[in-house]
Amino acid sequence: MPDLIAFLTDYGTRDGFAAVCHGVAATRAPSARVLDLTHDVPPQDVRHGATVLARVARHLPPAVYVAVVDPGVGTARRGLALRAGSSVLVGPDNGLLPPAADVLGGVSDAYTLTNTELWLPEVDRTFHGRDVFMPVGAFLAGGGSLGDVGELVAVDSLVRLPAPARTRTAASLTCEVTYVDHYGNVQLAGDESDLAVLAEWAAQGWVDVATAGPGEPEESREPGGPGGVRDRARVGRAFGDVPAGELLAYLDSDRRLALAVNEGSAAARLRVRGGSSVTVGAPAEG
Amino acid sequence: MPDLIAFLTDYGTRDGFAAVCHGVAATRAPSARVLDLTHDVPPQDVRHGATVLARVARHLPPAVYVAVVDPGVGTARRGLALRAGSSVLVGPDNGLLPPAADVLGGVSDAYTLTNTELWLPEVDRTFHGRDVFMPVGAFLAGGGSLGDVGELVAVDSLVRLPAPARTRTAASLTCEVTYVDHYGNVQLAGDESDLAVLAEWAAQGWVDVATAGPGEPEESREPGGPGGVRDRARVGRAFGDVPAGELLAYLDSDRRLALAVNEGSAAARLRVRGGSSVTVGAPAEG
Amino acid sequence: MPDLIAFLTDYGTRDGFAAVCHGVAATRAPSARVLDLTHDVPPQDVRHGATVLARVARHLPPAVYVAVVDPGVGTARRGLALRAGSSVLVGPDNGLLPPAADVLGGVSDAYTLTNTELWLPEVDRTFHGRDVFMPVGAFLAGGGSLGDVGELVAVDSLVRLPAPARTRTAASLTCEVTYVDHYGNVQLAGDESDLAVLAEWAAQGWVDVATAGPGEPEESREPGGPGGVRDRARVGRAFGDVPAGELLAYLDSDRRLALAVNEGSAAARLRVRGGSSVTVGAPAEG
Repeated sequence: MPDLIAFLTDYGTRDGFAAVCHGVAATRAPSARVLDLTHDVPPQDVRHGATVLARVARHLPPAVYVAVVDPGVGTARRGLALRAGSSVLVGPDNGLLPPAADVLGGVSDAYTLTNTELWLPEVDRTFHGRDVFMPVGAFLAGGGSLGDVGELVAVDSLVRLPAPARTRTAASLTCEVTYVDHYGNVQLAGDESDLAVLAEWAAQGWVDVATAGPGEPEESREPGGPGGVRDRARVGRAFGDVPAGELLAYLDSDRRLALAVNEGSAAARLRVRGGSSVTVGAPAEG
Repeated sequence: MPDLIAFLTDYGTRDGFAAVCHGVAATRAPSARVLDLTHDVPPQDVRHGATVLARVARHLPPAVYVAVVDPGVGTARRGLALRAGSSVLVGPDNGLLPPAADVLGGVSDAYTLTNTELWLPEVDRTFHGRDVFMPVGAFLAGGGSLGDVGELVAVDSLVRLPAPARTRTAASLTCEVTYVDHYGNVQLAGDESDLAVLAEWAAQGWVDVATAGPGEPEESREPGGPGGVRDRARVGRAFGDVPAGELLAYLDSDRRLALAVNEGSAAARLRVRGGSSVTVGAPAEG
Repeated sequence: MPDLIAFLTDYGTRDGFAAVCHGVAATRAPSARVLDLTHDVPPQDVRHGATVLARVARHLPPAVYVAVVDPGVGTARRGLALRAGSSVLVGPDNGLLPPAADVLGGVSDAYTLTNTELWLPEVDRTFHGRDVFMPVGAFLAGGGSLGDVGELVAVDSLVRLPAPARTRTAASLTCEVTYVDHYGNVQLAGDESDLAVLAEWAAQGWVDVATAGPGEPEESREPGGPGGVRDRARVGRAFGDVPAGELLAYLDSDRRLALAVNEGSAAARLRVRGGSSVTVGAPAEG
């Protein structure tokens, strides 16, 4: 088992919660190294955490991942340890782990965490990162066997996040926003094939972009409707392919379709966030 | 002496001040490891820093703690090195260190930092973390003797933070807010025995909660008075013990009485922060 | 070559971009250590990044610096590796690296990064930190030779940031704000000699301070004009040399002229940020 613990949470950095878990790891597996992936996942935003975990997994050496974004802590939701490639992922059964497992080669074995002997002696129902997940991760990074963490469960019993919405017609592509990064770059539920189509639509130089206005429920909002934003984007490869302040449609470094503003924030300009809907289309005639 | 330096400050992360101290440690004690506990203590908030330091100390292996939240830097306030259990705490004499020392078994020896030969050659009066505290911490983590850092001083001469306010009557408990974490969970100056009493008061299912409105001085504000918030909370163990959006009174992972909103922020809902006053009581009749 | 990689970016911490680069380093140079200097440089703020890099370089042991604040990523701007003292600096040719190189003893050799064999197999035009700079840094920290990264270029061909504005007359000093830290301390384009002059002007106990009001372009704004702030500062050495809430002019820990408010924010009080203009002068008669 790798002796590298890759650690991701929504614990923030100001409260010391992640440092407490470092302490647990240092006590229980003194020879393991802990690499902080991030602790700044927005509180309880499982999809954000899952996206970052998968992004990083693509580039890390084999590791024991301990990932905790866990709105259901202390309820009946299961704790998991998943073998994927040469790595193991430890965390709650709420959709956080599977995208990274897919990147690592898919889940080969799935266990629920039921061996309480590996946990801290007293388990608080609000802090399983400290009391359950990191102790199990340290056990594995310290040389423990995956089979000792609990019971084998069926891989198809794991909770998975719903696939983000994406609809492409002959003249338009409507996508869910899957991620907004701290620059304001907007990742969409589209890929390289979608970008190729956008490049065709951009024969006059650009594509139209429309977003939905505020209103509940988000699911029923109409891109281009009242309160939404209408704009246009060029299709390119680098931020500098468009002048400062202009919208760019491109393939981002995760190889996903994305929108950016050169030297600016596409999220602010389009007023979108994770879960919003964006329609990109061939420019209207005239 | 442990070769692990556990490092906590209010330096933030964007200015490189903590990295500068890492450089000092790497230069002076190349074999020591530095673990960042947090550098996001709110600027000059000594109580916040003391709470996080004590929280983490409960779970770390023996370490040389270097802790700097130091509004009095460059004035006559003393620098300290305290032996507590198998650990040493280095930092300013302003109340920051004693709560962690208590967790580690209490202060057995206290020294003021007067041996200037251990410091950087030039000491700036605004950056003792770089010029005094980390050099002393690195000296200790590199194998130096505690007795060489300065003069022994009486343990009862150390500055300690005032105990937070807490008053319990037959039907109500009024507590100071001791800490608000980044989720908005509100830690109070109460403990397990207080929670047990709250559970009795919650015979109808909940307890009343009242907070003081804005106004100066905070000390004279009346919970439930004008501008305060009146609400009610259930008593439980896990966030999921109440529906999303409801208030929970529980024992937090520091084993302190606390208030949370399931999938929300209790601090925002109750409009409180560290130092605010909260009254919890048996529900009014009727 | 040092096996310490000192890593600075504007990638933030919430998106995992820096962790991805850690993964690249761990894969390509498993024996290297990576020290995070900061990833919280304000997005695309090259001057902020350059200031922090130089600040830290003063105190670090020899290192391979990988620094990425790179608004021009994917355009024709060059990638660089600069030898300075016993260290090497890797990053974009946009002014980010030279101030740190100067601190380290000046650039002795400058190379452009043209050896694509050292890069990741596929180079994305929006993420050279992952695909170019960290792979080159890991190559060097893993024992690679600087001469293998690309072509020698003339040291005087490197892009350098313009010197910040500073004008001193017989009775006043007008300086650009070069840096504002997270406490709100305001660093100016002045040095120890300027502070000595301020101390003379402060014969009555203080100096006058005037800042420019908002308006475009910043360059043409007049300190003390409409919308600006007029205030006064004492000259001292430690924050505690003035009462809480008062302005202090002092030499900061970078040995630059600076303004602070004891237990407060000078930037908020003077309404300035990086690039603003501040005039300090002998107090007006009367």
